[in-house]
Amino acid sequence: MSLNRSNRNSMINKFILIFIPFIFSNHFYSQNIDSTQLRKIYDFYLTESKCYENLNFLCKTIGHRLSGSKGAANAVDWCKKAMYKAGADTVILQPCMVPHWVRGKAEECYLNSGKTKNKLSCCALGSSVGTGLNGIKAKVIEVKSFDELEKIGTENIKGKIVFYNVFFNQTHINTGAAYSEAVKYRVKGASYAAKYGAIGALVRSVTSATDDAPHTGNMVYDTTISKIKIPIVALSYKAADELNNSLKNNPNSVIELKTYCENLPEVLSYNVIGQINGEAKNNSYIIAGGHLDSWDLGEGAHDDGAGIVQCIELLNMYKKLTLKPKNNIRVVAFMNEENGLRGGEAYAKFAKQNNEKHIAALETDAGGYTPRGFNVDTLNGLFNKVILWEKLLAPYFANRFKKEGGGADLIALEKLNVPCIGFEPDSQRYFDIHHSKEDTFDKINKRELELSSAAIGALIYLLDKYF
Amino acid sequence: MSLNRSNRNSMINKFILIFIPFIFSNHFYSQNIDSTQLRKIYDFYLTESKCYENLNFLCKTIGHRLSGSKGAANAVDWCKKAMYKAGADTVILQPCMVPHWVRGKAEECYLNSGKTKNKLSCCALGSSVGTGLNGIKAKVIEVKSFDELEKIGTENIKGKIVFYNVFFNQTHINTGAAYSEAVKYRVKGASYAAKYGAIGALVRSVTSATDDAPHTGNMVYDTTISKIKIPIVALSYKAADELNNSLKNNPNSVIELKTYCENLPEVLSYNVIGQINGEAKNNSYIIAGGHLDSWDLGEGAHDDGAGIVQCIELLNMYKKLTLKPKNNIRVVAFMNEENGLRGGEAYAKFAKQNNEKHIAALETDAGGYTPRGFNVDTLNGLFNKVILWEKLLAPYFANRFKKEGGGADLIALEKLNVPCIGFEPDSQRYFDIHHSKEDTFDKINKRELELSSAAIGALIYLLDKYF
Repeated sequence: MSLNRSNRNSMINKFILIFIPFIFSNHFYSQNIDSTQLRKIYDFYLTESKCYENLNFLCKTIGHRLSGSKGAANAVDWCKKAMYKAGADTVILQPCMVPHWVRGKAEECYLNSGKTKNKLSCCALGSSVGTGLNGIKAKVIEVKSFDELEKIGTENIKGKIVFYNVFFNQTHINTGAAYSEAVKYRVKGASYAAKYGAIGALVRSVTSATDDAPHTGNMVYDTTISKIKIPIVALSYKAADELNNSLKNNPNSVIELKTYCENLPEVLSYNVIGQINGEAKNNSYIIAGGHLDSWDLGEGAHDDGAGIVQCIELLNMYKKLTLKPKNNIRVVAFMNEENGLRGGEAYAKFAKQNNEKHIAALETDAGGYTPRGFNVDTLNGLFNKVILWEKLLAPYFANRFKKEGGGADLIALEKLNVPCIGFEPDSQRYFDIHHSKEDTFDKINKRELELSSAAIGALIYLLDKYF
Repeated sequence: MSLNRSNRNSMINKFILIFIPFIFSNHFYSQNIDSTQLRKIYDFYLTESKCYENLNFLCKTIGHRLSGSKGAANAVDWCKKAMYKAGADTVILQPCMVPHWVRGKAEECYLNSGKTKNKLSCCALGSSVGTGLNGIKAKVIEVKSFDELEKIGTENIKGKIVFYNVFFNQTHINTGAAYSEAVKYRVKGASYAAKYGAIGALVRSVTSATDDAPHTGNMVYDTTISKIKIPIVALSYKAADELNNSLKNNPNSVIELKTYCENLPEVLSYNVIGQINGEAKNNSYIIAGGHLDSWDLGEGAHDDGAGIVQCIELLNMYKKLTLKPKNNIRVVAFMNEENGLRGGEAYAKFAKQNNEKHIAALETDAGGYTPRGFNVDTLNGLFNKVILWEKLLAPYFANRFKKEGGGADLIALEKLNVPCIGFEPDSQRYFDIHHSKEDTFDKINKRELELSSAAIGALIYLLDKYF
């Protein structure tokens, strides 16, 4: 393929227009200063930071902390102290009412193939109703999509248990994409199954691992699909395989399921917000947040204890390096990301009421793994500004920038036109352990956690300096 | 800072010269075809590849495999079969004589502080002589550098044990840089200590972890420094801390050390070379290699079982995707990288004798972690060609290219002017487990191993197509 001369000239002009402004600004000069400062930031994180020991405490002393639980309340107390200790000028607790779902006794699930009766590894999904003390017992309809469910129809589904046997698509390079594809069966599977008369639903765990640990996560009863609430559980990958095999040999295989979970009355809880006051003493804010709540399996180490300690460490960075931000820097430990987003909503409401100007909001909720980069909003020209720092972050392997937004806790802020950023660590191992008993502190690598914290520290530093 | 007009014009011309050739080649067109092919390659690796199960077998059934050991011989047999099974047209065993160092009974090291006597976790370094059955017992001189050793001098060192208390520099972003800095005390520490009359040497394990597992590795008796061979061991990080503390409180602390290692007569061993014949049936070769030998602690999972299975999988890729290479593709399982490089030398000698044209040689010896990119030689314009594939590899997060060469096994080939490439996975976790009992199969993440294998597959495919 070749191009004619006029095309060529027009492309040359385009090049000049695109590249020259970058070259002839004072950009190069300030990049030298910034590069020195970033090196100091990284030195601090790799030799003095407390994120690893903070996470150890959060995981091992406080443990899991689902909204409404004693663990969540303890986490709020700890987080407030940890933020002050790290150097916050002020820490406030921002109230919000949160759901209070409890798992109750361990789930019991048996597969009766006609010849054998085996226990299957499963866990109730968050927000699901329980089966009642008598449990449920029925034949199984296996499907791979909602379309298939519709084709099979009410007459064949009524009174049965629906099994969504949908695999995690391993061909995605970023595992988040595979998660997004498969998670709809976890979230809305119960309502669709109920629509066709099913009495319960099972879903293959949404995970990249091929393990025997069931992976929980929230579900939603969507009353626009069905008004009936039926229980739903996640089967472990191996249990899903076993059920699939059993149904191949005996389509009349029966599942017996007892779950003890229930939705209790809502509870008062809090976002924890630590602030370093900006030198300009104005009403402008840059925030970095993760979520303090976690599922009740495991310890919430990568999800999202890592995000919490990465953000708390920002306060320590400003203190130890005696940096003075222009804007107010807020570290936000959101409550209730996992099953309600009440914390994110409360924060946005508060910000709006106080007419606070949010320059940018960053969320970190993809684990404490080795950094790759950031997903950055195009709103207010944020992406175009941040991409100029690509060279500064390249030596730290944190220089992949994608046009995207932040995490779930920032949805309400995005609606208020706050430009959002999501921290993007390497995604390969996250969904192996996500929402399961395997999300524990021993899965944290110290250097990876420190580098991920440092990447966030560096970005927040630059955002504050240039906005 | 601003630039005057003539500078500006000269920069514009520079831009045109640099960018236009890329734009107006048929490069864009072929990149589309290549991009489709790379997607197929990645799909294969992420759904059908056998690298994970191959590595499981190598680690769990064969286990560690130091040169000259029964494990190494078993590994050679297994590797030949595995290469045929993966689709090699031919597999040859290329002979080389290798050192045969054995650890013997477990090392015993006691720290007598005057008040307490504690066992310290340690291991003999490869190639070190043993202490003899009576062991050695002496006071300790702690140093942080060879310079310090020289300053302390023979009169203060004679008859004592030298302790190199040199830390892994955690501020390096790539851990390989920290390793390179510290490893000289492991390699030449015994000879320098002997030069000043020491009877033994201890070295803090060269590791990014703060664990109690000693990390071994090869040492060399450099007769240009001293003709006397004294025993040397690595202390675990924690043992090194304990010794350091003890010496602060009691400089007369005594170390009692017994090691049972010895150097036995050399043994005949082999490189294992699997080949897919090129369609052009000429004498040109592209090779990808790792090393088959491993240390006798752990299972050699990341070092370098991962490299071996990544390379074997290339054969499977060509077979399963029915790709026909132009050049001969060779997968080389080098023997004796860890303590002699005899395999690398034998390969280069053979290649020279047969007047083989080596287009490029890739080594993978940095683990089976999530990919970052490749270190590529500038020789024969290789780097400038490979950098054009940056966009092709970006969706796979394997697009960092650095001007550097291959691994230790390729040194002899580099001397023959073969352009070399080193695969570069993320480096954060490698030196936590490197050369210790912790380098086991459970440290391998399946997706990371598959993606690292795929990155190598993609690069070899492109090299063959464009050379």
